[in-house]
Amino acid sequence: VSIALPSARHHAEALSRQDQLIKPTGALGRLEPLSAWVCAVQRCCPPREFRKPTLVILAGDHGVTKSGVSAYPSEVTRQMLGGFLHGGSAAASLSRSLGIGLEVFDIAIDSEPDGIPSYVNRHKVRRGSGDISTESALTHDEVLAGIDSGKAIANALIDQGVDLFLVGDMGIGNTTIGAALVGVLTQGGVDDVLGRGTGIDDDALARKRTVLGAAIRRGEMHRKDPIDLLREIGGADFAAMVGLLLQSAASGVPTILDGLMTTAAALVAKAISPTAADWWQASHQSTEPAHSRALVALGKEPLINLDMRLGEGSGALLAYPIFQAAITTLRDMSTFEAAQVSDRG
Amino acid sequence: VSIALPSARHHAEALSRQDQLIKPTGALGRLEPLSAWVCAVQRCCPPREFRKPTLVILAGDHGVTKSGVSAYPSEVTRQMLGGFLHGGSAAASLSRSLGIGLEVFDIAIDSEPDGIPSYVNRHKVRRGSGDISTESALTHDEVLAGIDSGKAIANALIDQGVDLFLVGDMGIGNTTIGAALVGVLTQGGVDDVLGRGTGIDDDALARKRTVLGAAIRRGEMHRKDPIDLLREIGGADFAAMVGLLLQSAASGVPTILDGLMTTAAALVAKAISPTAADWWQASHQSTEPAHSRALVALGKEPLINLDMRLGEGSGALLAYPIFQAAITTLRDMSTFEAAQVSDRG
Repeated sequence: VSIALPSARHHAEALSRQDQLIKPTGALGRLEPLSAWVCAVQRCCPPREFRKPTLVILAGDHGVTKSGVSAYPSEVTRQMLGGFLHGGSAAASLSRSLGIGLEVFDIAIDSEPDGIPSYVNRHKVRRGSGDISTESALTHDEVLAGIDSGKAIANALIDQGVDLFLVGDMGIGNTTIGAALVGVLTQGGVDDVLGRGTGIDDDALARKRTVLGAAIRRGEMHRKDPIDLLREIGGADFAAMVGLLLQSAASGVPTILDGLMTTAAALVAKAISPTAADWWQASHQSTEPAHSRALVALGKEPLINLDMRLGEGSGALLAYPIFQAAITTLRDMSTFEAAQVSDRG
Repeated sequence: VSIALPSARHHAEALSRQDQLIKPTGALGRLEPLSAWVCAVQRCCPPREFRKPTLVILAGDHGVTKSGVSAYPSEVTRQMLGGFLHGGSAAASLSRSLGIGLEVFDIAIDSEPDGIPSYVNRHKVRRGSGDISTESALTHDEVLAGIDSGKAIANALIDQGVDLFLVGDMGIGNTTIGAALVGVLTQGGVDDVLGRGTGIDDDALARKRTVLGAAIRRGEMHRKDPIDLLREIGGADFAAMVGLLLQSAASGVPTILDGLMTTAAALVAKAISPTAADWWQASHQSTEPAHSRALVALGKEPLINLDMRLGEGSGALLAYPIFQAAITTLRDMSTFEAAQVSDRG
């Protein structure tokens, strides 16, 4: 898949405009390249506010939780749907406060939640992905169905005017999957990617280490084939994130990644279409070791590090105001000439 | 001066509430202690939005610029007043976009700017502080006048309903003063605190190194006396920041610090009244080496590091949305019990 790059012309125009603003060159630090990236993806300089930024949370369960790798039971995934739909979760409260839309989809929750709007499970692939400690996560067709789900979600939301995606994942057991994918794709060992997820104790960590080590060994033979890799040690929500990331990039709509899960999906998506990655920005640095490793492999530097490890897109939401600040400064600041301020001697 | 601490009871209440929210314990990382600090300073849990957050920029020139320690001429300080009053500076555009008030005061600009509202220079101490490479920055009485200016500004704004200060500094040459104060107060040598400020070249850096080294040596004999230290190697804008930081804390109004200058002033203010420091939070980590050193000495960890080095309160403005996120999550998230979500097994 070949995906067009963001506009180099608008990128250059933005950097040139930055140098005329009433501040020392480079004084806005990372806001400066960030503002140029916004201009490049918007094909417009000065940049404008994003009109309809939207957080998409893809929810799915993972059979591997049967091995006791999480501090919480699987039913929490379903229960948290309510937290997103009724506004009580971190992602819901933050997105509301920031004026960001929130859309949640059941991709592979291990039950059929009732009382939810019909669009929420329209793209469901299956009830829970397979237990990667004993079986493939998905069939080949389910991988493709998951990717198609993500693409369909992206297309539907872009049709509704979404011009910036934030992507998050919800699913008990998901850091085991994310770490396994990152382990394989960055050729790391289990101790490079093992983390405490929701905050597991030492016993659960030992179990997670065993399961993760085996999954990485099984995944290694599929390192060169992203579809096979998702089938063996991925999950339907991960496949859907891959589809969403590829389709949004192909449509010229940028995305802010969240933590380990979305960055792992981004690594898989980049293996499918390397140029797509220019449409994504990292947001935060979570406490999961595999997340740091994935960011390095992806060549993205996170904007903030607040020791968060919640998922749900919460890191992307925390970083969003930095994108707004990058837009505001490049768009609204005066130039030396217009403000009659003396430039350096 | 004895200043009452923020409320320990509301701090504890906030941490207890955090543990009931539908997320793994600690998953919101640094937002959690930050939300507890907000509750402590507001004496209220759950916390509320700050009603009238206001950025105060204190402007002043420094005679030391005659030694060629900056990339910009002194008249830029005066010219930037217009950037704050008419909205074209980074601080003005960001504060407008964030709904934060902006107040700028001429404490020691080396001219009499015309066409400005009368309140802007109501608290002026003198035209330019002395050249610390050859003379004292201020007289003893001017130090006290500067501190009183800051206190009067704090009181006037608190009377107008300001319940959160962001503090910034504007003044060509100010990083030389900030670095000198930090060098003395942290017992560091010139190479521990020397930075490029607005982005000076190697020649200017060599001049700055000489001036700064001499200033630190002269300041060292006044390390135990903050007032004498401000007189010898400080400046009127720094004295005013010290006054503002002390008076806001004494009035129970919290402050978000900015970069090197405000953190240097905070170190001086803490030397005068140690408990005042509990009312302040660090915002960003600038690229100035002396800023890192000052933050360590102050015992404050910055929330963001975006390689910024602009001053004007821009780092405090970038960090402000993180305070909002800390408030939003603690105030608006559901509890496990209310949302009927399963807590860890």
